[in-house]
Amino acid sequence: MISGPPRGMRDFYPEDVRLRNWLFSLWREVSESFGFEEYDGPLVESEELFTRKSGEEIVGQLYNFEDKGGRRLALRPEMTPTLARMIIAKGTSLPRPIKWFSIPQCFRYERMSRGRRREHYQWNLDIVGVKEPSAEAEVIAAAVEFLKRAGLGKDDFKVFLSNRRLLATLLRSKGLPDEKFAEVCVVIDKKGKVAEPALKEMMENLGLSAAMVDGVFEVLRVDSLEEAEGLLVGTNTSLEALEETKRVLEYLSYYGLAGFCRFDISIVRGLLYYTGPVFELFDVDRKFRAICGGGRYDNLLESYGGGKVTAVGLGFGDVVISEILAEKRLLPDFQKKIDFVVIPFSQQERKVAMELSQSLRTKGNNVSITLDTRKLGKALAGADRAGAEKVAIVAPDELAEGKVVLRDMRTGEEKAVPIGEVG
Amino acid sequence: MISGPPRGMRDFYPEDVRLRNWLFSLWREVSESFGFEEYDGPLVESEELFTRKSGEEIVGQLYNFEDKGGRRLALRPEMTPTLARMIIAKGTSLPRPIKWFSIPQCFRYERMSRGRRREHYQWNLDIVGVKEPSAEAEVIAAAVEFLKRAGLGKDDFKVFLSNRRLLATLLRSKGLPDEKFAEVCVVIDKKGKVAEPALKEMMENLGLSAAMVDGVFEVLRVDSLEEAEGLLVGTNTSLEALEETKRVLEYLSYYGLAGFCRFDISIVRGLLYYTGPVFELFDVDRKFRAICGGGRYDNLLESYGGGKVTAVGLGFGDVVISEILAEKRLLPDFQKKIDFVVIPFSQQERKVAMELSQSLRTKGNNVSITLDTRKLGKALAGADRAGAEKVAIVAPDELAEGKVVLRDMRTGEEKAVPIGEVG
Repeated sequence: MISGPPRGMRDFYPEDVRLRNWLFSLWREVSESFGFEEYDGPLVESEELFTRKSGEEIVGQLYNFEDKGGRRLALRPEMTPTLARMIIAKGTSLPRPIKWFSIPQCFRYERMSRGRRREHYQWNLDIVGVKEPSAEAEVIAAAVEFLKRAGLGKDDFKVFLSNRRLLATLLRSKGLPDEKFAEVCVVIDKKGKVAEPALKEMMENLGLSAAMVDGVFEVLRVDSLEEAEGLLVGTNTSLEALEETKRVLEYLSYYGLAGFCRFDISIVRGLLYYTGPVFELFDVDRKFRAICGGGRYDNLLESYGGGKVTAVGLGFGDVVISEILAEKRLLPDFQKKIDFVVIPFSQQERKVAMELSQSLRTKGNNVSITLDTRKLGKALAGADRAGAEKVAIVAPDELAEGKVVLRDMRTGEEKAVPIGEVG
Repeated sequence: MISGPPRGMRDFYPEDVRLRNWLFSLWREVSESFGFEEYDGPLVESEELFTRKSGEEIVGQLYNFEDKGGRRLALRPEMTPTLARMIIAKGTSLPRPIKWFSIPQCFRYERMSRGRRREHYQWNLDIVGVKEPSAEAEVIAAAVEFLKRAGLGKDDFKVFLSNRRLLATLLRSKGLPDEKFAEVCVVIDKKGKVAEPALKEMMENLGLSAAMVDGVFEVLRVDSLEEAEGLLVGTNTSLEALEETKRVLEYLSYYGLAGFCRFDISIVRGLLYYTGPVFELFDVDRKFRAICGGGRYDNLLESYGGGKVTAVGLGFGDVVISEILAEKRLLPDFQKKIDFVVIPFSQQERKVAMELSQSLRTKGNNVSITLDTRKLGKALAGADRAGAEKVAIVAPDELAEGKVVLRDMRTGEEKAVPIGEVG
């Protein structure tokens, strides 16, 4: 006998679905309020869509398999490759910019530590075709707006922002060869999750000299854009990435979000395809993993054969935010609720009870009818558990006068009402 | 380069999601109006949950694979086994009856003929713990209510109803051994999809004599419950299944649905776990595959170790109904729509444009802002494509007076409005 879902997967009982539906509709509401359109792709994709160049954890964590026709398939671990594929398939027929959102379920075979799961739902927001950092500001502002509408404020979370190009420039100034940059980013992404000696060892394993590792840590101690500027001014380096980062923060201040945002050089994101500004949102105490994150990815569509297209994206999982809202007691009270339960007193009253149920539904009510014949007390207890606001009892005496007994379940008040006047 | 989804899977562009969201919310609305609660399970289940006894197509069509931990898993081909597992796991803590619905995506590796797909969404309605045929009436009435709300009527579709126990009784009276019944049902389920000689051959392949095959076809020609009764009366057979079938139809008539319902002995359903009344809904011309179907399954929970529990279920896919509604031009007009597009005339007006966007969103509007700086004509064309009802142009001259130009996109009318009065 199989009693539970496979390890790392979730069952959603009605109380869980009420939470999930609430979360999804708030994501939809905010997406639409920012003018994003919803899309979705297949949950099962061709494996090669996800097996990019090495170095990324995500590739080793694929749920991949062969179908009965010999195709190599994989459950999607993330949505961005599907987005890229779908946009490329439409060629130039999709006017730019494209502003799309989605709430895909994504699968990764991870070790089951620290409450991680092997599937989650992930709100994705993407803007394709906008070079300006206004695109970053837009997706970050939408994430912040969601958190505000969920009841969180400045004292609960912060946006930590950096720029991969800026980090690359700084590391290059410390002598790191460009071809090591992507792999070093994967290690830097573990900062805060893995202790410093372990990080150093991982970098040495990439072939970095002790001096170079020290250089990386020197850069990681950069605490502000001014400090970053100080390291670069006077060198022969372009300040473009620095200016771009400032502009993201400036746009966010136009949206009134300056107080939510911090520069943090150690934000790099685990995915290798990011090319510019990157960001992550965390609870202020950093008790939880990242609430969401994203950044600019200017080469991904090209790597799938789609020409040079600039894009910015955000991924926002359902698990961490649910934990945070639960801890702060900000989850709404998801009670069962139904407008009417109709109870036929005996089998004789079933016909009228069914007619009444149907007519109440036609009037827009949510109605349950007692399906078996049971004692009135038991039927009433069932109606109470179902969250009934009102109960209509079809009983012989009242029915003889064309009436039913209407009971208000909150007050317990009962009165006989002509059948046509119920609802 | 990968240009499309895997064979048999679908991409959902925004226009497709608008249709899907409409369908899902109508399913939710009807489910709730009948007092069903939503649940969901994992998309990936343990393989053994689905590998029941042989004979069913569904077992050969599994998307099954081994995960990196050596677990045998499968993408769910249907929802009922998950429902059974979840209910059993809760033991007696779930008060009966249980009335649950779900809209899972389900996967079957089928040959790609006649527009079939390898995934679909399937509205599931289940009632667990009700012996009375009131349960059948309830799920059928909900399916009919959905079709009515989608715009279909008595002249568009019919409910075809039968009873596996009744069929078994009739076939037994023709000499069919009970142990052949389940396999014969799988063949009978192909009636209407496969020509009669092929059906006969399939039955002979099951080891049925020619006389027995003739007996099966004689039973399949039974055209009414009266005729079925005629065959049974006088024999030593219980009329219980016959009475049960009558009662389903009687209850449906209480719901005012007699005109929608027909007895049809050849309805058996492809899944072996049905034990009593079974039904399928078809378009009246039978141009399309079944719109939906279901029945009573009294042994399934027990087969998973859950004790003897009676249950009734319905499965309703998204593909056939979408085809029918499209053919009858009953799909709503899913236009893109957005309340406001805000256009900064140049980079100088971006700050005000962003502030205005944010304030319009706070007032409950859906707002897109032009993210790059483009010529006004191009920005207006973009706003029109996005389905903007109104456009707010933040231009220097009006801004100097604290105003923006508000353009009604339907009438083309423009006027300067104080910023605080927009929205």
